[in-house]
Amino acid sequence: MAYQIKSKIWIESNGKILLGEGRVQLLKAIKETGSLSKAAKKLKMSYKKAWGLIDAVNSIAEKEVVIKNIGGKSGGGTVLTEYGNSLIVTFEKINESCWKHLDKEIKKSKLG
Amino acid sequence: MAYQIKSKIWIESNGKILLGEGRVQLLKAIKETGSLSKAAKKLKMSYKKAWGLIDAVNSIAEKEVVIKNIGGKSGGGTVLTEYGNSLIVTFEKINESCWKHLDKEIKKSKLG
Repeated sequence: MAYQIKSKIWIESNGKILLGEGRVQLLKAIKETGSLSKAAKKLKMSYKKAWGLIDAVNSIAEKEVVIKNIGGKSGGGTVLTEYGNSLIVTFEKINESCWKHLDKEIKKSKLG
Repeated sequence: MAYQIKSKIWIESNGKILLGEGRVQLLKAIKETGSLSKAAKKLKMSYKKAWGLIDAVNSIAEKEVVIKNIGGKSGGGTVLTEYGNSLIVTFEKINESCWKHLDKEIKKSKLG
């Protein structure tokens, strides 16, 4: 087949972007590293930008997505909540299901 | 439901964008007006940009999408081919089917 169909999805709440591919990557990196600064570094993003994104996600989501532990014995760290994890799992599941649906649709169409 | 899911689709051929929402709007305006300059004006786009987009679409598509009649008794004009029309019909059909699929998926999910 000569044509491919591509897609991008994102989740909004009251017209504000809650989650798109970039934010999901950031949340996954936080889950992996347990640290906002390490997550930002991993994605070659400034700490300030990562902080801003996380603040936006936390304020738009219905429940807390990320908990920032500032300082403390362990030197702080950033934790993805169970709710945050369910958001990224759902996002990726729906994204994959979207790709499959579109592949099926284009094969069914005159362009397939 | 607090969350909405949004999407954007586009069609590629060999890694090059053939059609996205903007190009589809331009092709529809050409169909409606029979003129590239009127179509560009309708979409508040420069003639040069519209011409560039149409050139790209024609060179990437498997068959001719738009025919530019330069000059002539009727003063030229631009015509969407039958193939071009089938492309926009298919694009819009798949786009709508994608939205429906995503709505269903988010309702089914933990976020719905």
